[in-house]
Amino acid sequence: MTVLPAEVSIREVCLRDGLQLEDPLPTAAKLELLAAIVATGVREIEATAFVSPTKVPALADAAELSEHLRAFDTVEFSALVASPNGARRALAAGFGSIEYVVSAADAHSRANVGRSTTEATEAIADIVAIAHDAGAAVEVIIATAWDCPFDGPTNPQRSVDIAAAATELGADRIAIADTIGTATPVRVTELVDRVRPVIADLPLGAHFHNTRGAGLACAYAAVAAGVTRLDASVGGLGGCPFAPGATGNIATEDLVYLLRDCGVRTGVDLPATIAAAAVAQRLVGHELPSALLRAGDRLTSTA
Amino acid sequence: MTVLPAEVSIREVCLRDGLQLEDPLPTAAKLELLAAIVATGVREIEATAFVSPTKVPALADAAELSEHLRAFDTVEFSALVASPNGARRALAAGFGSIEYVVSAADAHSRANVGRSTTEATEAIADIVAIAHDAGAAVEVIIATAWDCPFDGPTNPQRSVDIAAAATELGADRIAIADTIGTATPVRVTELVDRVRPVIADLPLGAHFHNTRGAGLACAYAAVAAGVTRLDASVGGLGGCPFAPGATGNIATEDLVYLLRDCGVRTGVDLPATIAAAAVAQRLVGHELPSALLRAGDRLTSTA
Repeated sequence: MTVLPAEVSIREVCLRDGLQLEDPLPTAAKLELLAAIVATGVREIEATAFVSPTKVPALADAAELSEHLRAFDTVEFSALVASPNGARRALAAGFGSIEYVVSAADAHSRANVGRSTTEATEAIADIVAIAHDAGAAVEVIIATAWDCPFDGPTNPQRSVDIAAAATELGADRIAIADTIGTATPVRVTELVDRVRPVIADLPLGAHFHNTRGAGLACAYAAVAAGVTRLDASVGGLGGCPFAPGATGNIATEDLVYLLRDCGVRTGVDLPATIAAAAVAQRLVGHELPSALLRAGDRLTSTA
Repeated sequence: MTVLPAEVSIREVCLRDGLQLEDPLPTAAKLELLAAIVATGVREIEATAFVSPTKVPALADAAELSEHLRAFDTVEFSALVASPNGARRALAAGFGSIEYVVSAADAHSRANVGRSTTEATEAIADIVAIAHDAGAAVEVIIATAWDCPFDGPTNPQRSVDIAAAATELGADRIAIADTIGTATPVRVTELVDRVRPVIADLPLGAHFHNTRGAGLACAYAAVAAGVTRLDASVGGLGGCPFAPGATGNIATEDLVYLLRDCGVRTGVDLPATIAAAAVAQRLVGHELPSALLRAGDRLTSTA
C-alpha cells in the first residue's frame, strides 16, 4: 500500500527555470508575476540565478530583482548558482538560501559549466563554506540525475555518489533533477530509494519536467517514495523556445491539484495558482502547457 | 514496494473516442489512420461506435468502416454501444467484441443515454444475451467512475455496484473510465482496490483522459494496483473541440514510453506509434497534445 507524506513543500521555480530561456522580461514584469505567485501561499520561491548574464540574458537582472524581494516577507527566496563566485554574488544580494547544481553526467557538466562532475562535486566544499559563513543554507541539486542529452542514461551510482559527497561536505538539502524530462516512475522510485540512505536526515527534493508527459507521474512516484519537496512552475513555464510546444517544468497548479486530491497538504491555493499561471502566460505572450489553466478545477462538490 | 505486471494490453481508441468530437473524417482517411495504427503492433482497436449518427456524426460511417476491417487480421476490433439496439448493429457489422457503457453518475447517464444508472445497468443482461448468442464478448465500461460533470464526485460504491452487477450478469471484462479527466492516483488506487474483489477473475481495464495533466500518473497508479488493460489514443486525440488545448485521452505513445521504461511489455512499437500520431495530427488538421510527438523518444543508449 502506498503511504504518502501528510505534507509536501512546493518550491516555485517559474522566475528562474521558467523564465531562463524566454525572451528577457523587464524586472517590473517579473515583480508583477512574483506578486501573483506570492498570493498563492507558496512558501519557497527560487527567484533567479547568479550565472553568466551573456549565457542567460533572461536572468541578467538578478541583483536588481533581488532588491525588491524584501517586500515579501512571508516567503523564503533562493537563488541558483553554478560556482563559488555565483554563490558570493547571491549572498551579497541578500539571499539566505542557494541552490548549487552538479550535473551527474560528465558531458552535461562540461557543456553547462565547463567542468567535470568530479570538479563540480569538489566545489561543494567551497560553496558550503561561503554560504555557511554568511548564515545561508545550501541545497545541492543533482542535474541529469536520470539521463543526459549527450551521454544517454546516467549510471544511478553517479547521483548516489554526489548525494553522499554533498552530505559529507555539509550541504543542507539534496535534490535530484530530471533536467531533460525523460524520467519515468519506476526509475524515480529506484533512484530515490538509493539516494535516501546516503544523505542522513537531510531533506530530499525532486525536480521534474513534463517534456514526455510523465512529469506528474514522476512527482507522484517521488512523493510515494518519501520525497517531501518538489519544484514546479506556474503555467508549466520552462519549455525550450527552440522546441515549440515541448513542455517545461511540471505546472504548479497541476501538481497542487493532484496532491490536494491525494490528501497531501501543500499550503498552496489552487485558484490563486491558476490565476498566477494566467499572469505568466500573458507576460510571456505565448500559450503555456498547463492543463489546469485550460481545464480548471474539477467540481469537488455539488453543495 | 510497487510491483508492476509484466505485461499490459493497450487498446487503441483513437478511431472512436479520439475522433468522436472532431469534424467527421472521410472513411478513407480513417482507413489511412487505421493502417498506421495497425503498424504499431497494437492488438486491440476500438474502431467505432454504434450510436446515434445525428448525435455523433463523426462516427456515422460505422457500418461502412466495419466492412474494411477484415483486411487487418492481426487485430481484435471492437465497437462501443450504448443500447441493445446498438449492440445488434455492431454484431451485424461483424464485431466479435463490444464495449457497453454504463455511467455511474445518474445525471451523466440521463444526459448521455436518457436512462438512469439503474436502467442502464439492468440492460447489461440484454446486451450480454445478444452478444453471447452471436459468439461475441462484452466489456462493461463504467463511465464517470470518479466524477460527473453535473453531480461532482461519484460515490465509489456506485461503480462497485455496477461492476458487481456486470459480473453477475455475464460480462466478459470490466473497465473503469475517467470520462472527464479529473481522476488522480490515490482515488484510482482506491477504486481499483474496491472493484477488483467484486469482479471474480474478470480482466479489469481503465480509461483515462489527460485533461488535468494527471492521465499518466493515473495510468501508472492503475497498473501498480493490478489493472492490466489500458485505453489510449495516438496523439492524445480526443479533446473537446469546444475547449481548445484541453487534452483528450492519454496519448498512446506517451503511455508506451512510460510503460517500456518501467519494464512493462505492451507489444506496441514506440517509433511506429509516434508516426501514427503524426498521421492523426495531419488528418484532423490541428495540433495534438501528445508529448512524445514533439519531444521524441529519449536517448536510451550511447552505443
